[in-house]
Amino acid sequence: MKLAKRMKNMKASEIREILKITENPEIISFAGGLPAPELFPIEDIKKINERVLVEDGQKALQYTTTEGYQPLRTWIAKRMEKRLDTNFNEDEILITHGSQQALDLGGKVFLDEEDVVICESPTYLAAISAFKMFGAKFEEISCDDDGMDMDELEKILKSNTKVKLIYVIPDFQNPSGRTWSLERRKKLAELSNQYEIPVIEDNPYGELRFEGEFLPSISAFDKKGYIMCTGTFSKIYCPGYRIGWIAGNKELIRQFILVKQGSDLQCNTMSQITIAKYLEEYDIDKHIEKIRKVYKKRRDLAVHTMEKSFPKVVKFTRPQGGLFAWVELPEYIDAREILKVSLKENIAFVPGGSFYPNGGNENTFRINFSNMQEDRIVDGLTRLGRILYQYIENEV
Amino acid sequence: MKLAKRMKNMKASEIREILKITENPEIISFAGGLPAPELFPIEDIKKINERVLVEDGQKALQYTTTEGYQPLRTWIAKRMEKRLDTNFNEDEILITHGSQQALDLGGKVFLDEEDVVICESPTYLAAISAFKMFGAKFEEISCDDDGMDMDELEKILKSNTKVKLIYVIPDFQNPSGRTWSLERRKKLAELSNQYEIPVIEDNPYGELRFEGEFLPSISAFDKKGYIMCTGTFSKIYCPGYRIGWIAGNKELIRQFILVKQGSDLQCNTMSQITIAKYLEEYDIDKHIEKIRKVYKKRRDLAVHTMEKSFPKVVKFTRPQGGLFAWVELPEYIDAREILKVSLKENIAFVPGGSFYPNGGNENTFRINFSNMQEDRIVDGLTRLGRILYQYIENEV
Repeated sequence: MKLAKRMKNMKASEIREILKITENPEIISFAGGLPAPELFPIEDIKKINERVLVEDGQKALQYTTTEGYQPLRTWIAKRMEKRLDTNFNEDEILITHGSQQALDLGGKVFLDEEDVVICESPTYLAAISAFKMFGAKFEEISCDDDGMDMDELEKILKSNTKVKLIYVIPDFQNPSGRTWSLERRKKLAELSNQYEIPVIEDNPYGELRFEGEFLPSISAFDKKGYIMCTGTFSKIYCPGYRIGWIAGNKELIRQFILVKQGSDLQCNTMSQITIAKYLEEYDIDKHIEKIRKVYKKRRDLAVHTMEKSFPKVVKFTRPQGGLFAWVELPEYIDAREILKVSLKENIAFVPGGSFYPNGGNENTFRINFSNMQEDRIVDGLTRLGRILYQYIENEV
Repeated sequence: MKLAKRMKNMKASEIREILKITENPEIISFAGGLPAPELFPIEDIKKINERVLVEDGQKALQYTTTEGYQPLRTWIAKRMEKRLDTNFNEDEILITHGSQQALDLGGKVFLDEEDVVICESPTYLAAISAFKMFGAKFEEISCDDDGMDMDELEKILKSNTKVKLIYVIPDFQNPSGRTWSLERRKKLAELSNQYEIPVIEDNPYGELRFEGEFLPSISAFDKKGYIMCTGTFSKIYCPGYRIGWIAGNKELIRQFILVKQGSDLQCNTMSQITIAKYLEEYDIDKHIEKIRKVYKKRRDLAVHTMEKSFPKVVKFTRPQGGLFAWVELPEYIDAREILKVSLKENIAFVPGGSFYPNGGNENTFRINFSNMQEDRIVDGLTRLGRILYQYIENEV
């Protein structure tokens, strides 16, 4: 039996494999991108669930349109306008099975074999898998604390005619935790419009800002309708419902709807209606504020503990929001080796190599700080620091 | 901006477009494949939903593994063994976002551009979309009331080296309503094994048998692990949850899990746990029996009314189960023309042309009988008969 050629390049997501190990409750896991389950609004969801089934059960359990539940799309359009200065209306929003599906659909709409996707270096690991499925190659662009290097980007746009798509995560990036400056956002919109290359701006963490001002979406500066923007309820409500979205100009969203029809017809009707009713009846801002407070505290503890316990040659980011910090070890150290040792001490994280589509950078790793209780964050990172010292003690 | 080449071949699913029209409650719709919403076990779902959130809320709303909820996979494996004589274990089942997603994943795992998919003629419209997305071509094989013509199939398998996948719906086929004989099932397994071509056996309707004996899955006769089988809770529980599955030998399922990771990470956790708990605490057989009874009555009424009201030159199938019957008009009549007229009289159905991947056969259409109340079935088909007489009165 012959499989498709793409299967030669497919490998198991390192995160999903590590997640299986971390199901053991004794493990202190900095590995997943899991939100804190103790913050899920379970009581409210219970009430809303029941009300939806009583008032609208037949509709909630039936098939619906591919586009998704209209009141939910309306809420999303308004929220994006308020939070991100965008100008999408409800017909420019498609509900997707988590924002991950928006990437799969993006691959379908934009990518032929050998097409080039420009991305940040490092970038979201499961975006690499999604785009690789369609035979994409990657051009990684260097990043600093203000985002992607725009000169390097323009050089590639000028010289590489195979570029078909730009993929970025400007807010609290996964994995680096970095946030783009306003200036870089404007510049990317300008370059996308000038070189006529579409952008998928992935924004799963944007609502989780701990300090500083919210910045506009890159699409807020889009003049030609080339910039699409994803979002999700996974980090502000719950991930188990798998409800995300992609926003883009109407013609592009029409293409996304077409490919979603063949991919899975539509998203979960009940989950869409439940979220829409929750948004109508409860104060999501109050709920998000609660999440922000808890994660901010965890971020503070994580950063503080790393400052105190990690060898000084080890660098790490201090994210203004989101779920992740990024650690760089001296170049000669392989984070996968460190992981082997730390797993023996019941501490898990994700080695950074997988976040680079073209390989290398094995001296990096990602720390998630949203999912562990405070004392375990301190304990785990303190002990991880001790392990790191064993490997680089000569340098201190 | 350049889109992927595949987008040139994508068109809106005729069914999903007609479904939008049929949201108007005045329309008597034979168009969708919608189950009867008055049969959804809403009261039971309400209780189970609440229990899941109270007992296991944090888990039910959190991320889970790509494979899906283990107790649900165990139930599915046992059910398939009992009903279809299969021999899959829980690790050979992947939970998918409806059985539609199993087709998308199948395209990813098996198909390169220009590969050939063998299918029944006609075949499920959204399978055509799913496989076309990966650049597939189609070889349609003629069918009679016992299923696919095995001589014609073998001829293609012998001569066409581009064949990569066989796709069939042996139980109460969509759109034709036909069911394969035991002999044809055995023969397909034999040919698949002999020519080493994998089969996706799509089985969304198999539980809905109104009369006669249940027949084994084609995969029951598979000796080499080449035959995969889909299933879904959409027709026996509710479609709004979007929970289906694909079963196959472990090595193949591992490939499907890999591509699902990049496609959407996993299915809705809450829906998976809710269904598993429902299956544990309620009698699904009793529930399915209720559905069967209602659909059988509707099938009887639909067939009886067509016999009475359609011109004698019009042929149609008398399905032993499922949701659909299939109508063939004299060749010179275009079902799309009939649809235009019937929509003016608030009657909808799906013209058959879209079910043929290589075109033609515009003189056919599909009738769904599961979604309309009895009196509307009789009224709608009686009036549709009158419209048909206007087009073929000379022949009577």
